[in-house]
Amino acid sequence: MSAAFENLCAHTREVALLSSIESLLDWDARCKLPQQGSAYRTEQQAYVARLLHDKQTDPRIGEWLDSVQGTDLTADPQSDSATVIREAQRNYDKQTKLPAELVEALTRATNDGQHAWVEARRADDFSQFLPYLETVYSLKREQADAIGYDECRYDALLDDYEPGEKTSTVREALEALRQDLVPLLEAIQGSGRVPDRSILTRDYPVEYQEKFGTKAAKKIGFEFDRGRLDVTHHPFCTEAGPDDCRITTRYDSNFFNMAFFGILHEAGHGIYDQGLRKSHYGLGPGHYLSLGIHESQSRMWENQVGRGKPFWDYWYGQAQQEFSSLSGVALDDFYFAINHVEPSLIRVEADELTYNLHIIIRFELEQALINEEIVPADLPEAWNAKYQQYLGIQPPSDADGVMQDVHWSAGLVGYFPTYSLGNLYAAQFYQQADKELGGLDELFRRGEFLELKHWTREKIHQRGRNVTPAELVLEVTEEPLTHTHLMNHLKSKLEPLYGI
Amino acid sequence: MSAAFENLCAHTREVALLSSIESLLDWDARCKLPQQGSAYRTEQQAYVARLLHDKQTDPRIGEWLDSVQGTDLTADPQSDSATVIREAQRNYDKQTKLPAELVEALTRATNDGQHAWVEARRADDFSQFLPYLETVYSLKREQADAIGYDECRYDALLDDYEPGEKTSTVREALEALRQDLVPLLEAIQGSGRVPDRSILTRDYPVEYQEKFGTKAAKKIGFEFDRGRLDVTHHPFCTEAGPDDCRITTRYDSNFFNMAFFGILHEAGHGIYDQGLRKSHYGLGPGHYLSLGIHESQSRMWENQVGRGKPFWDYWYGQAQQEFSSLSGVALDDFYFAINHVEPSLIRVEADELTYNLHIIIRFELEQALINEEIVPADLPEAWNAKYQQYLGIQPPSDADGVMQDVHWSAGLVGYFPTYSLGNLYAAQFYQQADKELGGLDELFRRGEFLELKHWTREKIHQRGRNVTPAELVLEVTEEPLTHTHLMNHLKSKLEPLYGI
Repeated sequence: MSAAFENLCAHTREVALLSSIESLLDWDARCKLPQQGSAYRTEQQAYVARLLHDKQTDPRIGEWLDSVQGTDLTADPQSDSATVIREAQRNYDKQTKLPAELVEALTRATNDGQHAWVEARRADDFSQFLPYLETVYSLKREQADAIGYDECRYDALLDDYEPGEKTSTVREALEALRQDLVPLLEAIQGSGRVPDRSILTRDYPVEYQEKFGTKAAKKIGFEFDRGRLDVTHHPFCTEAGPDDCRITTRYDSNFFNMAFFGILHEAGHGIYDQGLRKSHYGLGPGHYLSLGIHESQSRMWENQVGRGKPFWDYWYGQAQQEFSSLSGVALDDFYFAINHVEPSLIRVEADELTYNLHIIIRFELEQALINEEIVPADLPEAWNAKYQQYLGIQPPSDADGVMQDVHWSAGLVGYFPTYSLGNLYAAQFYQQADKELGGLDELFRRGEFLELKHWTREKIHQRGRNVTPAELVLEVTEEPLTHTHLMNHLKSKLEPLYGI
Repeated sequence: MSAAFENLCAHTREVALLSSIESLLDWDARCKLPQQGSAYRTEQQAYVARLLHDKQTDPRIGEWLDSVQGTDLTADPQSDSATVIREAQRNYDKQTKLPAELVEALTRATNDGQHAWVEARRADDFSQFLPYLETVYSLKREQADAIGYDECRYDALLDDYEPGEKTSTVREALEALRQDLVPLLEAIQGSGRVPDRSILTRDYPVEYQEKFGTKAAKKIGFEFDRGRLDVTHHPFCTEAGPDDCRITTRYDSNFFNMAFFGILHEAGHGIYDQGLRKSHYGLGPGHYLSLGIHESQSRMWENQVGRGKPFWDYWYGQAQQEFSSLSGVALDDFYFAINHVEPSLIRVEADELTYNLHIIIRFELEQALINEEIVPADLPEAWNAKYQQYLGIQPPSDADGVMQDVHWSAGLVGYFPTYSLGNLYAAQFYQQADKELGGLDELFRRGEFLELKHWTREKIHQRGRNVTPAELVLEVTEEPLTHTHLMNHLKSKLEPLYGI
């Protein structure tokens, strides 16, 4: 191994170490920090961010990269060494290609944007938010142009979250998905069947929810000696080290779904992080592949597994013992209730089917904005029109319409499609695992969930960034990204429930 | 103000910022870190420690100090500017006077020493620990010699914890204390009276202990919007920022005292930290004065206030409502039980009186070791002899005798006396506050505790390091350090209880 390569690895690991400290400061700020402590915490975080930025833009990285690119180390693109180098190059380019003034302007615009978004949403006044949104989008276009792209400007932004993925591929898959989802949704709405959702909004004491959720997370393979579960307003999963994965949830004592499926979801993210190669922590081969692939792991445990009948064949008796609200409720009624589909206003509260339509709306709108086919001022009208068209509903206010998400105010453009990509990947991986493991239903009915965890670890987690998302999907499932498996999954579950 | 002074302040604040991050990493490691996360946490902590060391030994500090020493800024030693400079000089000297090899050797010896201590204590085998202890003490002597001292070698070590304090002063006060404590203890043991201690070891559900302890901490003035309370095995108080003070405790569901008086104790530390001048966070004027003064604040709330009759005149009814174990127990019986005095083996479990004898034994032994009047191999015998002489008991094993504390293995020599200094200062400050505030008993019976908190904030906390501990005691109480107030406090409480 060359000295340059060793230096590059050591330096990258140092960046990861600093970055893990940044993660801990952030986790603590969201979970534990006393109210008055936030001002100084901001100083601490800014300080570490400066240290990180200095490390990440160290010109020696460029020199090391120059002497390892095009050598034996990069000959096999899927090798660990090539992956380390490719990732280091990618990060160095992202850090150094943007002019310092643009980075500063983006930081300011997204900080201001988030504050303005909070206020404008509270006041239900889009016009208050508009100038901030215009600035953010204008800077995001500059960013895309500075980074560069082959096919379209949106590619440069999508690449931040889905390395190597193309807008055209994603658009094709999501467009096909939309065309199949809308008629399925119409059929469901026309079925006349509605489950008794009140089952889920009875008394569910937080203490028992925590106990039951923790038990389920442990059973599906989240390792609590390498992680923990805490309470936050906005649930998330973060890593503060290779053996320190922290997931969070929130509890509503009068709603079963939020915490339970939230815990399964975050535990899915956590199982991915815990499944990465520890030997390569901080380097490309030990890094999660993309947000879409990350989301596939959370969605799979939440939806394919956690909302499935075999899962509840195993757990329902225990749930009934834990929650008196479920005594006398038949499993079939519970199962129907947790799988109810109905168009609704808010993305984060949407069901497994309509969730994707919420995403597709945002994906279409942000492409139009980046391509300057529409301007931010057009957004409320465009938003409401698409909600009418795809979901058949009209937001009563911009606060619960176009202003419901923080993402755009924070400069997260290109992020939304990764949620639905996660759903597509999840279904595609799941059907393959089902084939290879000889039928998951039977395993789940017996409470055996670790086979699936181990399969994903070997096939997905341990591949790190040695492949692209597209390569991984092909490698694991022997076909490219497709919407058919998600549609099969939804149809085979929902058609019998709704008698369609 | 000179540019050098401004640079010095900015640099010192940067050190404080990094140091606050170090504190958070440490707090998290002790309270929240998943079991397997400790290896990487050690790397994170070592990394921040290296950054800190680089900052603290930056040669520019020496240049800035050279250009501000002896100027108007240092003319009044109690001014903020002189205090900033004195503290910066003190820290710079401590960081730069020790040869790098000695610092490294100390780090290694105390790391190894702590591991060896854990093992040797578990095996109850002092001989296993002995070589490590010899190394630590030999290096501590080297350290003292490298730092330098006027009167005796121990001064150089004591100064780490009690800046500017002299061994001779401490020895005189603690020797006088010992001479008065031993006969008082004998009188108590000869009284034939013993409270019913079983009152305190009944059922005390952890949940209610936490609720009641939190309520009491809040009431005496610990600010929960600038701090928090968590659970650890070894309780402590730490600061991760000017508005982020974190205290911890541990609960035993069959013992009332441990958590409740532990919380009062740590809240006392926390109230000190929260009372420091935020405008000077990280600088001498915003720094706690010494460990002894810090301890005086915790001991005052724990003992002078928390074990006093007026405190319980106010709280006892609420305690009875919270804990069914106390229903039917007369306040007088409870009050006697929480103030019971009895020689015992373990320092951290000792009562308010005998605690000081535990400390005096350690203080005498560590001076003898530093002065080479005895060698580490003599310790078990010397320890047991002093326990017999002062407390009339014999440790049944070295594990619960000479090896009961972590301090020496960790190189903390000169630390022990600060605990008893805290008791002396606490009593001396308390009697002064009582005079100035016109009788604290009456305030406490009404549940008014904030007057005392505000008095200590103004007189003690806000003085930072602008004075020495000796100057502070004189300034606040108009007399030098004395053991008479602690003796008065103990006698006036214990003589009536024991009828002596």
